[in-house]
Amino acid sequence: MPSHDFDYDLVVRGATLAGPAEVFEGDVGVRDGVIAALGRGLRRGREEIDAKGMIVTPGGLDPHCHIEEPSEGGGVQEESFSSGSAAALAGGTTSFICFVPQWKGHPIAATAEGYEARARASRADYSFHQIITDPTPDVLDREVPALVARGIRSLKVFLTYDPLRLTDGQFLDVLATARRLGAFVTVHCENYDAIGWRIRALLEAGLTDPLQHAWARPPVVEREATHRAIALAELVDQPIQVFHVSCDEAAEEIARARARGIKVWGETCPQYLTLSTDDLGKPDFEGAKVVCSPALRAPGESERIWARIREGTLDVVSSDHCGFSFATAKRDPGSSGYGQGGAGARPDGMPAFNAIPNGVPGIETRLPVLFSEGVSAGRIDLPTFVRLTSTNAARLFGLAGRKGTLAPGADADLVLWNPDAERVLTNADLHHAIDYTPWEGMRLKGLPTLTIRRGEIAVRDGQVLAEPGSGRFLARGPYALATPSGRVPDGFDAAASRRG
Amino acid sequence: MPSHDFDYDLVVRGATLAGPAEVFEGDVGVRDGVIAALGRGLRRGREEIDAKGMIVTPGGLDPHCHIEEPSEGGGVQEESFSSGSAAALAGGTTSFICFVPQWKGHPIAATAEGYEARARASRADYSFHQIITDPTPDVLDREVPALVARGIRSLKVFLTYDPLRLTDGQFLDVLATARRLGAFVTVHCENYDAIGWRIRALLEAGLTDPLQHAWARPPVVEREATHRAIALAELVDQPIQVFHVSCDEAAEEIARARARGIKVWGETCPQYLTLSTDDLGKPDFEGAKVVCSPALRAPGESERIWARIREGTLDVVSSDHCGFSFATAKRDPGSSGYGQGGAGARPDGMPAFNAIPNGVPGIETRLPVLFSEGVSAGRIDLPTFVRLTSTNAARLFGLAGRKGTLAPGADADLVLWNPDAERVLTNADLHHAIDYTPWEGMRLKGLPTLTIRRGEIAVRDGQVLAEPGSGRFLARGPYALATPSGRVPDGFDAAASRRG
Amino acid sequence: MPSHDFDYDLVVRGATLAGPAEVFEGDVGVRDGVIAALGRGLRRGREEIDAKGMIVTPGGLDPHCHIEEPSEGGGVQEESFSSGSAAALAGGTTSFICFVPQWKGHPIAATAEGYEARARASRADYSFHQIITDPTPDVLDREVPALVARGIRSLKVFLTYDPLRLTDGQFLDVLATARRLGAFVTVHCENYDAIGWRIRALLEAGLTDPLQHAWARPPVVEREATHRAIALAELVDQPIQVFHVSCDEAAEEIARARARGIKVWGETCPQYLTLSTDDLGKPDFEGAKVVCSPALRAPGESERIWARIREGTLDVVSSDHCGFSFATAKRDPGSSGYGQGGAGARPDGMPAFNAIPNGVPGIETRLPVLFSEGVSAGRIDLPTFVRLTSTNAARLFGLAGRKGTLAPGADADLVLWNPDAERVLTNADLHHAIDYTPWEGMRLKGLPTLTIRRGEIAVRDGQVLAEPGSGRFLARGPYALATPSGRVPDGFDAAASRRG
Amino acid sequence: MPSHDFDYDLVVRGATLAGPAEVFEGDVGVRDGVIAALGRGLRRGREEIDAKGMIVTPGGLDPHCHIEEPSEGGGVQEESFSSGSAAALAGGTTSFICFVPQWKGHPIAATAEGYEARARASRADYSFHQIITDPTPDVLDREVPALVARGIRSLKVFLTYDPLRLTDGQFLDVLATARRLGAFVTVHCENYDAIGWRIRALLEAGLTDPLQHAWARPPVVEREATHRAIALAELVDQPIQVFHVSCDEAAEEIARARARGIKVWGETCPQYLTLSTDDLGKPDFEGAKVVCSPALRAPGESERIWARIREGTLDVVSSDHCGFSFATAKRDPGSSGYGQGGAGARPDGMPAFNAIPNGVPGIETRLPVLFSEGVSAGRIDLPTFVRLTSTNAARLFGLAGRKGTLAPGADADLVLWNPDAERVLTNADLHHAIDYTPWEGMRLKGLPTLTIRRGEIAVRDGQVLAEPGSGRFLARGPYALATPSGRVPDGFDAAASRRG
Repeated sequence: MPSHDFDYDLVVRGATLAGPAEVFEGDVGVRDGVIAALGRGLRRGREEIDAKGMIVTPGGLDPHCHIEEPSEGGGVQEESFSSGSAAALAGGTTSFICFVPQWKGHPIAATAEGYEARARASRADYSFHQIITDPTPDVLDREVPALVARGIRSLKVFLTYDPLRLTDGQFLDVLATARRLGAFVTVHCENYDAIGWRIRALLEAGLTDPLQHAWARPPVVEREATHRAIALAELVDQPIQVFHVSCDEAAEEIARARARGIKVWGETCPQYLTLSTDDLGKPDFEGAKVVCSPALRAPGESERIWARIREGTLDVVSSDHCGFSFATAKRDPGSSGYGQGGAGARPDGMPAFNAIPNGVPGIETRLPVLFSEGVSAGRIDLPTFVRLTSTNAARLFGLAGRKGTLAPGADADLVLWNPDAERVLTNADLHHAIDYTPWEGMRLKGLPTLTIRRGEIAVRDGQVLAEPGSGRFLARGPYALATPSGRVPDGFDAAASRRG
Repeated sequence: MPSHDFDYDLVVRGATLAGPAEVFEGDVGVRDGVIAALGRGLRRGREEIDAKGMIVTPGGLDPHCHIEEPSEGGGVQEESFSSGSAAALAGGTTSFICFVPQWKGHPIAATAEGYEARARASRADYSFHQIITDPTPDVLDREVPALVARGIRSLKVFLTYDPLRLTDGQFLDVLATARRLGAFVTVHCENYDAIGWRIRALLEAGLTDPLQHAWARPPVVEREATHRAIALAELVDQPIQVFHVSCDEAAEEIARARARGIKVWGETCPQYLTLSTDDLGKPDFEGAKVVCSPALRAPGESERIWARIREGTLDVVSSDHCGFSFATAKRDPGSSGYGQGGAGARPDGMPAFNAIPNGVPGIETRLPVLFSEGVSAGRIDLPTFVRLTSTNAARLFGLAGRKGTLAPGADADLVLWNPDAERVLTNADLHHAIDYTPWEGMRLKGLPTLTIRRGEIAVRDGQVLAEPGSGRFLARGPYALATPSGRVPDGFDAAASRRG
Repeated sequence: MPSHDFDYDLVVRGATLAGPAEVFEGDVGVRDGVIAALGRGLRRGREEIDAKGMIVTPGGLDPHCHIEEPSEGGGVQEESFSSGSAAALAGGTTSFICFVPQWKGHPIAATAEGYEARARASRADYSFHQIITDPTPDVLDREVPALVARGIRSLKVFLTYDPLRLTDGQFLDVLATARRLGAFVTVHCENYDAIGWRIRALLEAGLTDPLQHAWARPPVVEREATHRAIALAELVDQPIQVFHVSCDEAAEEIARARARGIKVWGETCPQYLTLSTDDLGKPDFEGAKVVCSPALRAPGESERIWARIREGTLDVVSSDHCGFSFATAKRDPGSSGYGQGGAGARPDGMPAFNAIPNGVPGIETRLPVLFSEGVSAGRIDLPTFVRLTSTNAARLFGLAGRKGTLAPGADADLVLWNPDAERVLTNADLHHAIDYTPWEGMRLKGLPTLTIRRGEIAVRDGQVLAEPGSGRFLARGPYALATPSGRVPDGFDAAASRRG
Repeated sequence: MPSHDFDYDLVVRGATLAGPAEVFEGDVGVRDGVIAALGRGLRRGREEIDAKGMIVTPGGLDPHCHIEEPSEGGGVQEESFSSGSAAALAGGTTSFICFVPQWKGHPIAATAEGYEARARASRADYSFHQIITDPTPDVLDREVPALVARGIRSLKVFLTYDPLRLTDGQFLDVLATARRLGAFVTVHCENYDAIGWRIRALLEAGLTDPLQHAWARPPVVEREATHRAIALAELVDQPIQVFHVSCDEAAEEIARARARGIKVWGETCPQYLTLSTDDLGKPDFEGAKVVCSPALRAPGESERIWARIREGTLDVVSSDHCGFSFATAKRDPGSSGYGQGGAGARPDGMPAFNAIPNGVPGIETRLPVLFSEGVSAGRIDLPTFVRLTSTNAARLFGLAGRKGTLAPGADADLVLWNPDAERVLTNADLHHAIDYTPWEGMRLKGLPTLTIRRGEIAVRDGQVLAEPGSGRFLARGPYALATPSGRVPDGFDAAASRRG
């Protein structure tokens, strides 16, 4: 029951509340960091925020970002948990999930402990996906169950990248382990051999520009691996999410599989919704700034990705934030694990396309760019924005009801948006540790003005108030799937006997 | 601000709240018939309902039922507004939309006034679709705009039935009028000529049993008319809903059209989800009880309709409640407007299949049957149940935010469900005026135990407390569509110039 | 056994022979108007033609042309059987099927006798489709069986045009009659009401140019009627051919139906493969020259029709030759039965788009245009050319083995092509009675140099040698279908019982 | 010009001639082993065969059979060229293509010379596919070009089997080599890792019966590899044929790819059209007789394969003849290269499912089984039978116009069929060296009664007259493809630049 003088610690009053399904007018009452009530004319809070004219959404959950990630060579990505989480909060993201690496030949523990220690500096709530690069019996039968028991319930596998890729057989071992444990599996889908084959051909032809990054990995290599990942998941009857879908071809494979009842989900990123090979082809090595994998696609492709969002095939938009600065890492051949095919250099001393560290920074811009290009531009409505940026990821990754929604009992992670505010995006205004943003100069309409994390004001007017270490580790529960169609896929024995 | 002693008129406390997107634990506080707050530990209400262990959903909105509808011959359907609305409330439906007829050669006014007067006896909230059978310039240019101004913003057209059907040209006139006025159009899709042609062939062959009703209108005649209705709506760029989809063939046409951006929605009914030609073929003229159009389909088809629900192609489940008793009307050749091809009788004096009044009673059973076969049987989850039974219809028919949701500001229409309760369904327990139910003997799991309509307890333990006349007419606003895909279809001029 | 001195009446020696499946080198030996042998080093013929370097194909069979067709008003199309058949032969077409009209309210006999008498003037072999506009019991039960008995085994129905269109019910009666008799049915598929509705809207808006002909009948009206025609044919299990498919939308409906085993075939015409709305929009009323129905489509659409040819969905290319001169008929409001929506005139005295007689002349250009744009341009190979222009029509229309092939026993209808010859097409070189060709100025590569009709040289170097009256009436046998997929569609009873 | 007394060496007179497109009545005149004429009333031949009432087809071309193939361990398949070619001729197959193996670590030459020497014993005409298991630069850049120059213009790759499989990268190297040389590539499509993973799981569970062979390789592993092979071929723009398609899932991938213009073809075999897991599950180890890969599918699947034949997706039916006797090899764990996952034995001493040599004998039964189940049973027509059994393979494998057709200039390979003859198939009547046939006891309708190979009677009434060594090596020309749809796929650079 409420305290003596105030019913709530905080009341956000008179807002347009945008949840995953609906938009309505009302107040949010917060108690003990949790949403205690949604209503009209709620009683007083110790603190009151007048949100008239504002839109309030749940805080963003970014389920795919690389923060302060070590490389096997000993380097560490420039984005620290302190800077990265400040950027997240400033952009309306109150929680994120990043990646614990594993080195081949080493147990998970070798990398996990140090990484988890670093993560405690986060200002936002955080959790981990566990990357599996070496699925030995010890890793799968001992280490992974221990992780799952601690609430780290999602595994990440790569079907490409030299030091990271799994064979199909290893991938099946991971899928089967996940199924046994009730863990979720996420997959980077590109055909490793095909990319390597094309890289060699391009380098032999003397083609080394950043634009050739896209030539080396055309849509067909992404579709191929997407289809293959789905087939192997179907064999084991294990739910998966295909990460960072960049093209309609890959999305089509996901849509087909869902139509026949396969448990597969698809994610995309703002870069695939707004950028293109026109950016990759910019002169003076500027294209290197947007080298990421899968590669950016031809102009026009992004509208097909928006369409796949609207039809529901792609239902999560993450940042795939990756902390490589342009002045240093992006010009440093092979300085990360995220490259392929060697570290060739060009006559001008810059790395060949295949040796440019892959990834773009975007943890802070994810929500504003999506709000502006999505909601303000009329491509999606507000509930879709909420589902894409937090609700759906919360469901898939075991945080349903706790993150990504406006409902009593949920963490009071709230973002106030001024839908009419406009600004030109520039890196100087961002809080990340990276020296550029791919969206430099983009005009945004609709801006976050206040971020509340578990009932506390974390960012006000661009000023980050949350302290390092104030973020909490999120131990996650089982995934909460809605099978897209009725035919529940068969498991091992059932599939075998069904088809003979 | 809350009153002196009580913050709320009514608090439903400690329930599992199921909204259109989520399920969460909490209380509902009601003030002035409206949801004032959702929360945990809400302050006291003047009245308190302990809902521990119960599921609370928004009250059902049945957007398709025939109540006390007059036939041109002078008869009136047996279901009165008093009995029908009592049945609705007892089954958890707090609002419904029924049909104002129009007779060919007459203005709408000729039938509307009397019908609206009768409707005032309703215990549940109600609104009207306007049937258009004679779209004269006066009807379209004068009467329909006046209806829309009064909040009757949806038109119903029939592509079959002798006295009701429109030609394609008339249908286009209705679509164009609706587009101009921002009204919505609903369509009964079956090919009139094909049905008539088959009826004649069957009667000539001496085949007159109720089962032949299905033979006379196979899936292809429904698919054909569905495709045609969509094509004509595409030509005019007017949103439509296809009523009572019975088969995968028709659903497929809707799905294809949505995939290319056409503004078309699909509805189905419990009879198509649970019954089949096995029921229609029952001996002793029992099959007549389930003569409805489109006809019931072969056993097995219903699982395909469930699948179409899960993929989102069909997103409303209405009752298509129709008030014809078995002892009287169903055995009375041609006693309604809902037949085709004449009023032939059989040697046993019973009407031939084509003269049996079409329709099944279902306003009270709609929600319990769908809850039991859908939620309890694991075919759909609770938010889907809510969307199917109220939220989606509220959006399409201009009641978004007011009906069909659990959110501050919405009408406090609430149903308490005991998910564990079981009962064998029997007509004696129902409140409608009809002498049978097609689901006689079905075992239900999950039952409504309390219905609240605008904050008042309307039904408790099967006893209807709401008085005749306590329902309110719902003046409705514009439809609120989400275009399923991004490609907004072109209107008249655009389409012409686009394609040459 | 061969005659004393010569084994053959005629030997075409040393050609590249192109049949419906293969291309091979050899000679053709002709005896008694029939192919007696294909071989190498055949013995001598009374007449010898050196065909070295030439391609020899079967003579064309044009299954869709309007020749000397009377209108109900008393006029007759300008193209006479003498001129039309001369044009056919000059263009490599040795047989054609034209249309016997029926006037509503009159028996077939009223028009058939006179028309058949006129046809005897033909220089090429000929047969008839019977148009049905008034399917009375007497027509269907008495007249049509008599026609079929005489080898007129195909019925043509229109779903649009004021004086010609059938209702869906009448169409079903025709389909059922054809099924009983083993006759084939061809259909003009456009939605009559939708076209009329758009014509009114355009005229009211003062839009009367020839280009508006295309605006009045966009692809969706063709797709709709195509889908409907297929659905009704499926109901009756009667094979049909959809005439003159102009757009991918209609072809898609045919392809979908074939994939599920429906017996439907599709035809297209050179105008849909080479012309577009750019031609229809030409100034100075020039666009009127290419007013035909369905209308020409946007530039680019024709490549989709070529693709549908290559995938086999469209497997016949006819001319739909129509004898209206530009100087007279095309400028004469409503002078034919092939118009719709009245005979409005424009300020300049020219007819409004809807009153321009529909149709383009093409009986002579069909093969050369298809050879040049198809074979020479690399879009299709020679056997495909042969199948499209003769073999497939011969099968569908009961002439398999007799026309449209190079095989012993077939009529010796042969065309010699010089694949390297080039010419600019101009109406002055053509033999038809029409004062223009839509392909004026087109550069052709690959030209017919000699036409042999039943072993006689009918055209040499552009000079028509065949006399009027030398053509023969072709009494045709039953259709020879290959069901495109294995699932044979059900007939009336089967369909009913299968689906309940 | 014909000789003095006789125009022909041989005349087959009065037959029903069935070519790849048509059926017609006539005679075939043969001179110098080649078809000299097709006609009616041909002049006398030195030898005359009265074929009245008989059907004459081109001799079969079996493009996929394993004959006297050595294994790396030193064994050789039991079927010798002498026995195998006798069986071929007896079954109406006059030419075949078998496989030259390559051992990993060895050049092609190491195996090719001996194998080619053995092949000279063949009684039927023959050619080779070159298996590539070790695509070293020397193999691809030196040996393969030499093979192509000698008319061995097709390469075979395996995506599964322990000693044979290529990685995706190796496969790309082969595809690129083939593209450069104008060679064709055929592929065995199953996912190696997935099969191995399931084999281990099954063996660990103690499941070792022949039936588990199907459980180890369900349709999804075939679809996956089919999709992957097509994707890699698309990347390189190299035509491929997918060998032995066993299930609709794999066929669907081929159909989808063809629809977007990819140059891919599909083959199937009689075992997938007539047998099922019911055969594989027979007791007493009988199931081992039908262990082949891909595995037999569930009953009912074969009708879907027939449908894929009729729609044209699968257009070649080969035998995949494999020479392992039941009494010896099939019970001998791992005696061939065609197994996977080790050579485990069962308690009864029989090999576990995965160690049973893969393959079924079928070179002699291919045509009679397909004639009986296809033509006589009404599933396909005669020209389709001809295309499936010879014409299409002749085109793909560079023998167009020479094999697989009835046309002047083609080799006089002819089979006389008695369409009314019936026989129960039994191994005792067959000519192969294998001790069983999977079709033991099948009743056949329609039997070959005479086989002519290059104008000589090779088999009469079941007696093989052709001598060992009378077959000729077929040096083949380039493939002759018809791109199924118009959109020619892009090659390397084009694809890259098109998509960015």
